[in-house]
Amino acid sequence: MTATTTTRTSTEGNHERLTATGEGLRRALDGPFHATKQRWRREVDAEDIARSPDFSVEEARAWALEKVVALSGRDFVTAGFPEAYGGTGSLAESVANFEMLAMGDLSLTIKSGVQHGLYGGAIMNLGTKYHHDNFLSDAVTVRTPGCFAMTELDHGSDVQNLETTITYIPESQEFEIHSPHPRAAKAYIGNAARDGRMAVVFGQLIVGEENHGVHAILVPIRDSEGLPLPRVTTGDHGHKGGLNGVDNGTILFEHVRVPRLMLLDKFGGVDEDGAYHSPIKKRSARFFTMLGTLVRGRICVGGGAASAGRKALSIATRYALERKQFPRPNIGDEIRLIEYQLHQRKLLPEIARAYAFGFAQNEVSLQLQRLHDADAGSVESRELETRAAGLKMLQTRWANDTVQVAREACGGAGYMSENGITLTRHDVDIFATFEGDNTALALLVAKALLLDYRATWGDLNLRDTAQKTAALVGTAILERTTARAPIERLIKAARGKSEAEQLSARGWHIQMFDFREKHIVEGLAQRMRAAAKASEEGLFAAVNACQSHMVAAARAHMDRVVLEAFIAGIEACQDDYIRSLLVRVCDLYALATLEEHRAWYMEHNAFDGKRSKGLTSAVEDLGQELAGKALELVEGLGVPTAWLNSTIA
Amino acid sequence: MTATTTTRTSTEGNHERLTATGEGLRRALDGPFHATKQRWRREVDAEDIARSPDFSVEEARAWALEKVVALSGRDFVTAGFPEAYGGTGSLAESVANFEMLAMGDLSLTIKSGVQHGLYGGAIMNLGTKYHHDNFLSDAVTVRTPGCFAMTELDHGSDVQNLETTITYIPESQEFEIHSPHPRAAKAYIGNAARDGRMAVVFGQLIVGEENHGVHAILVPIRDSEGLPLPRVTTGDHGHKGGLNGVDNGTILFEHVRVPRLMLLDKFGGVDEDGAYHSPIKKRSARFFTMLGTLVRGRICVGGGAASAGRKALSIATRYALERKQFPRPNIGDEIRLIEYQLHQRKLLPEIARAYAFGFAQNEVSLQLQRLHDADAGSVESRELETRAAGLKMLQTRWANDTVQVAREACGGAGYMSENGITLTRHDVDIFATFEGDNTALALLVAKALLLDYRATWGDLNLRDTAQKTAALVGTAILERTTARAPIERLIKAARGKSEAEQLSARGWHIQMFDFREKHIVEGLAQRMRAAAKASEEGLFAAVNACQSHMVAAARAHMDRVVLEAFIAGIEACQDDYIRSLLVRVCDLYALATLEEHRAWYMEHNAFDGKRSKGLTSAVEDLGQELAGKALELVEGLGVPTAWLNSTIA
Repeated sequence: MTATTTTRTSTEGNHERLTATGEGLRRALDGPFHATKQRWRREVDAEDIARSPDFSVEEARAWALEKVVALSGRDFVTAGFPEAYGGTGSLAESVANFEMLAMGDLSLTIKSGVQHGLYGGAIMNLGTKYHHDNFLSDAVTVRTPGCFAMTELDHGSDVQNLETTITYIPESQEFEIHSPHPRAAKAYIGNAARDGRMAVVFGQLIVGEENHGVHAILVPIRDSEGLPLPRVTTGDHGHKGGLNGVDNGTILFEHVRVPRLMLLDKFGGVDEDGAYHSPIKKRSARFFTMLGTLVRGRICVGGGAASAGRKALSIATRYALERKQFPRPNIGDEIRLIEYQLHQRKLLPEIARAYAFGFAQNEVSLQLQRLHDADAGSVESRELETRAAGLKMLQTRWANDTVQVAREACGGAGYMSENGITLTRHDVDIFATFEGDNTALALLVAKALLLDYRATWGDLNLRDTAQKTAALVGTAILERTTARAPIERLIKAARGKSEAEQLSARGWHIQMFDFREKHIVEGLAQRMRAAAKASEEGLFAAVNACQSHMVAAARAHMDRVVLEAFIAGIEACQDDYIRSLLVRVCDLYALATLEEHRAWYMEHNAFDGKRSKGLTSAVEDLGQELAGKALELVEGLGVPTAWLNSTIA
Repeated sequence: MTATTTTRTSTEGNHERLTATGEGLRRALDGPFHATKQRWRREVDAEDIARSPDFSVEEARAWALEKVVALSGRDFVTAGFPEAYGGTGSLAESVANFEMLAMGDLSLTIKSGVQHGLYGGAIMNLGTKYHHDNFLSDAVTVRTPGCFAMTELDHGSDVQNLETTITYIPESQEFEIHSPHPRAAKAYIGNAARDGRMAVVFGQLIVGEENHGVHAILVPIRDSEGLPLPRVTTGDHGHKGGLNGVDNGTILFEHVRVPRLMLLDKFGGVDEDGAYHSPIKKRSARFFTMLGTLVRGRICVGGGAASAGRKALSIATRYALERKQFPRPNIGDEIRLIEYQLHQRKLLPEIARAYAFGFAQNEVSLQLQRLHDADAGSVESRELETRAAGLKMLQTRWANDTVQVAREACGGAGYMSENGITLTRHDVDIFATFEGDNTALALLVAKALLLDYRATWGDLNLRDTAQKTAALVGTAILERTTARAPIERLIKAARGKSEAEQLSARGWHIQMFDFREKHIVEGLAQRMRAAAKASEEGLFAAVNACQSHMVAAARAHMDRVVLEAFIAGIEACQDDYIRSLLVRVCDLYALATLEEHRAWYMEHNAFDGKRSKGLTSAVEDLGQELAGKALELVEGLGVPTAWLNSTIA
């Protein structure tokens, strides 16, 4: 079967010849987004998205603006907006588009992400018809380049304590936007340094004597010629560690006035009489509802980082299949890198993780769409936000590590910019920080687990979290997220298997993932409840001591969610041969994850040292087995070869 | 004691005010190189060494050349050469100089490393008086920028199979240098793209019908005006992932002729009659003796990477001491990042590792000097080469990971080039690859261990290694590398301690490090001896399956060597308070290393799950304790604040 399926080539894709196995894997991994993603592969050329590594900062910025306008005109980055304003597809498709663009260039991706996802998304989600009618079309076409001005120099992760004020002036029916001191300037804002004309500015809304918490308002920052406006001072962050196509900068406001209607007032506004009104009574609930509408950004950033990882793996694997070094003992021909055990260990488990994350990403995109369509309740929203945060954290960490592994796997060649990895390496770095610092996100995921999704997500500080930790964890969070029936079947099938058989039994993998999650989350809940009893002075120390435990809980939960998504993805695959291959890839994902956490399992007597060593052997054996399908597997990751922008690949 | 020692400030260093504790730590960590390093701190300003991150490639190259000439003129990078040719210090001091320069800028460091370390070093070590008299002074002053042309496009790690030929032409008493095909071009060569005038070219020396193996020869590649010479084609690698101040390029030779005297003939040459002669009979022994003289390069590269890690930790720690985020529960003041458990976990164990590597680096530099002075035998040379390879591998891996941790620990600010981390991140990446790919080096270290340093280092391929693996490992390799008496005393003192007491008993740490090394190396030796019995066809597979085991052996050996160096460093410290602090830092290094490998220990029943969890708690507690001394600890790392080139630090 292998021989025929791998030698047949396909004409799908733009000039790209794939093995049939690679094509089948690509179809399975694209899943519900295959058509959307194939349109990119057919119609988008390298020149539409491939950036030169030696552009200066200004050249890169000019290039990114030009290309994002062009892609917008061709409807590649406009999904998620209503058709009346130039939109062309669903929210879920907008995530798929982001992922494809990220296979091309991350500066361009973030340039579009700032414009369409953050700036346009804020108008759409926080604004009302007035804002949609007046500002949305120009956001979609990039006629008005816009900023999403949330982060400040002094407050980044702690958005609730932003210092910018939005004060209502009843006399003139205006709002006055003000940065009380230089460290309250908006910072790291895309489009601020050069292109932005308008900004969605987040600040404390003050009406009369009362602070209603953080709201967002539209504020012009430059005129239509790009000249500065009075009382608005923009700064330029200049050269960055990557993403130099995005013009990040600072914005400082000195008593800037805008009309009352500029407030994005879907969740809270001021009427003509100067009275504040909101459909959500509680201030913090309102804030997190507003933030919750921005969940797509995190889903996109996680998926985009994974695309960067897939691209780097595609380059490194293709190189490993060609590159030879050192003669074979006694025979004399030279050995391909992919044949070396250490090289297999570097690449194959990461390819398996790329598949796992891909299936999980598809699922969260569909979940986003489903909740949007159904106007879901708060527990469902919390669950989506938790999953988005967790996947963002997992995938951006993985992408950073994996792009580095790929660079090193290509040796000196990997360091030459012409080979396509280093630009990606530089650009993906900040994905670990923006749209939620990964450490902060891990803590948020853990909080949501402790509270069983009941409380408004992010609503509670650690003290309150400790005090409100559920008496019993489990009802909502330990439920299967998908594929319930097949998973129960697999668990049943694994029962009574011998130790040796268990290693390749999916049901055993699931039980092990379940056990780790349940044990860590329950142990954490106990510690948090105990911490809640600390004295007022001792509370910070008591909760602070649980931080590593919280990260472990978030990781364990997300690992289980990802495994379930992989199983669901295999269930959905219609092709027997492709499915059988995905089963082996999933084996590698599961075993590599168990191996990574084997110390924890031994500490908790889930298995002994012998079994632990068996896991390592199994990972090595599977890596060797799948190395024989390495080309097909990276074809399946879905990055068109023409986009790799790499001489060696 | 703490209060008085930390408030006193020092006037040592260029405009730098240090706490007395920081100064004491710096003195201890500098060790025998304190005077050499203080000269840099006093006399070298940021403008001498700080590169602008937004230089174009050509600007960066021009800057690096200008600065390296200036530093050479001030005798900062000329140690290790004989005084007659412009040298000013010992070999060991040349390593210390490299480390200091690497605290400034890595492009500049590698520009000097190529010129003085590789090009100048090759002339010094492989050449004879004729070459010294004619070429060394101009190498030292950079009047003749030179290349070290070893690596080829097709052969990098596998230097023995280079394809460039150096063929003797008896008629004219010349050598002809030739690249037989384009993939045999020299590649990634520093100084090749722009500045180089002369190259030390490595190739197969052919005299008559016989190939005498790889030798090195001086070949002009450009005239004194920088214009190309006939039959020499240079190429430009252009933009790279970092180190853009170094002009890496390719060199292709088409039957280039040079006089007979240009062969660097210390270890093998051709006399006037056309006869080959060498003091070393065996071809491969000769080759590895030649390579062995270049051991300093690896020692420098490991130390330079560690300097980059120290610099990034200095920036991130200073930021963590200032930066606040989120209010303290019930109290309302904001919390400094350094107070968070997760932040302590990120930074403190790495600071401890920085100290550990620093002491190990000092030791290997002294060992280099000692062997040079004593004209040491082959086992001693092998031991030095093994240690240099192992420390290069450990420190460059650590630096890559740690600079990334530091970047992320500074959040968005860490990504702004003005804050000094990202340029270092880009530059240090390739340290994992050049001067020996880390994976290849790990295998070489393991081979040396298996062969008990007896065989010529690197001499044997894996088949031969398997076949010649010592019947009993241990005589040479398991010996203490330093501080024998104090270590035996510490082990004795730990005997009979309770489990709880063991965690902080150095003797127990040592025993655990010893056990891991011994067990892994012996297990590997058994597997290799078994592999040697495989059929000719099965041999590659059998040995290949041991690769991960080999890496583990190399790691375990080096971890033990580093711990011993730390203990020796503490022994040498004369200040009681500083010594007591170093003891705690060493505790953290030892415990964090044991924690990292806790799965292995449990797999081998060295301790149980309870002890394993206790290790993690101990690392957390120590991190918290030492966070209270974080400023002093990073001062001790020895990077002058003026050199951090960082707005946030």
